[in-house]
Amino acid sequence: MITSLHNKEAKTVTALAARKKERDRQGLFIVEGPKMFGEAPAERISRVYLSQSAAAQMKEQYGEKLAGLSCEMVSDEVFAKMSDTKTPQGILCLVRQQQYHIEEILQDKNKKQPLLIILEDIQDPGNLGTIFRTAEAAGADGVIMSSRTADIYNPKTIRSTMGSVYRIPFLYVEDLSSIIKKVREKGVRVYAAHLGGTASYDACCYQKGTAFLIGNEANGLREETAACADTVIHIPMEGQVESLNAAVASSILLFEASRQRRMSKS
Amino acid sequence: MITSLHNKEAKTVTALAARKKERDRQGLFIVEGPKMFGEAPAERISRVYLSQSAAAQMKEQYGEKLAGLSCEMVSDEVFAKMSDTKTPQGILCLVRQQQYHIEEILQDKNKKQPLLIILEDIQDPGNLGTIFRTAEAAGADGVIMSSRTADIYNPKTIRSTMGSVYRIPFLYVEDLSSIIKKVREKGVRVYAAHLGGTASYDACCYQKGTAFLIGNEANGLREETAACADTVIHIPMEGQVESLNAAVASSILLFEASRQRRMSKS
Repeated sequence: MITSLHNKEAKTVTALAARKKERDRQGLFIVEGPKMFGEAPAERISRVYLSQSAAAQMKEQYGEKLAGLSCEMVSDEVFAKMSDTKTPQGILCLVRQQQYHIEEILQDKNKKQPLLIILEDIQDPGNLGTIFRTAEAAGADGVIMSSRTADIYNPKTIRSTMGSVYRIPFLYVEDLSSIIKKVREKGVRVYAAHLGGTASYDACCYQKGTAFLIGNEANGLREETAACADTVIHIPMEGQVESLNAAVASSILLFEASRQRRMSKS
Repeated sequence: MITSLHNKEAKTVTALAARKKERDRQGLFIVEGPKMFGEAPAERISRVYLSQSAAAQMKEQYGEKLAGLSCEMVSDEVFAKMSDTKTPQGILCLVRQQQYHIEEILQDKNKKQPLLIILEDIQDPGNLGTIFRTAEAAGADGVIMSSRTADIYNPKTIRSTMGSVYRIPFLYVEDLSSIIKKVREKGVRVYAAHLGGTASYDACCYQKGTAFLIGNEANGLREETAACADTVIHIPMEGQVESLNAAVASSILLFEASRQRRMSKS
């Protein structure tokens, strides 16, 4: 049982929670709470930590899954320090990062037309996680992010994906314009969401391969990125609202595509 | 100039930022930053505080608006303590709360069909603010909230409304079921978003008076609240996603209504 904050593993956990550099160096990230532990693929879990007071309940709830995993008990005091949340939920694990390739994202799964989202410099970890969760719900096949986008393995982002991070393929790229070119060469049409877009988003057809390009929360898409798209679209807004939250804009576009695709089937 | 943390006004500001009880007792709330100050209706601003180092720039940018208002300079050190944000933006003001009545929300403005959103126990201040912002953008006429919903005047909520809080009428009610009855009596159809909903949201027509009923982030709508609606709808989801973020679900529904209403005009 870990009872000291000076324990090497306790230090590793806090370093992984705090620093992207450390996460990337070790190829690991932290997952907290029973729900996110329950959703994590067992083969990617490298270590599990249980707080002393929650251990019995966790073993009752997740006994089968825990049996095959490397577990360690932690005193409540040390566990509270290892946890990234105000009210630790008694279980925390290290999960191996997954590397995806653009080919996996673009491959024709189940012969359906690809649906992708491409993000430029999204900063808020909560927004990023919410976009993953919404993308999975809308039937998207992958998320492509500029390298200046928030880290998907940030504990806040992980939490707000609600498990979609395990299931949606994703990719960070240095150069969005060359990946957009690649996506278009595969026959996927790229729609840039931009306040200056000429077409209303609901006047376009998304039943064929579609990728939505969404910009940074404060500044929107860079002009040169928007220029790489096939079509620049906008979401018509009433009142005095200047822009929508990035996760909201993504949701409206993804679910419009999902709606059109359901319609075409029925 | 305020230079001490023991100053009475400095204490009032921190109390207003921290406590709903204090905000309600004084009928005031705090607005921070140049953008949110710029959007605040001048007639509702009771006091403005400028940090010493930002004062010149604020006067240059907002001189005309500031001229008619009661302003006070604050030393940077004290201003940082009065501010709710990590990087204070040099301007902060007290704004009078606004009381709306259900009749204002339900009145037939510009002879258009009402579009409302009714929230049950939304807990996250950021979600609530985002719903206000999105509701205004979708052309909604008002937001009705259960009394256990987060406080719209919480500084985090205010920030995430991006100014919509000044423009969208809203109401807190003790009893959602009786307000739903009232809304329905006015000829507005109430659609409850619920995972168990039989109708897909995109199979309904929202061109007539429409109210969407959205539940708490963790538990969704109470069965007894959902039962008050005309129709229980769901948003079809793919993958293994169990539910959508409350602000995302609200956005998808509000913009589907907005889309249908634009279509009917063209």
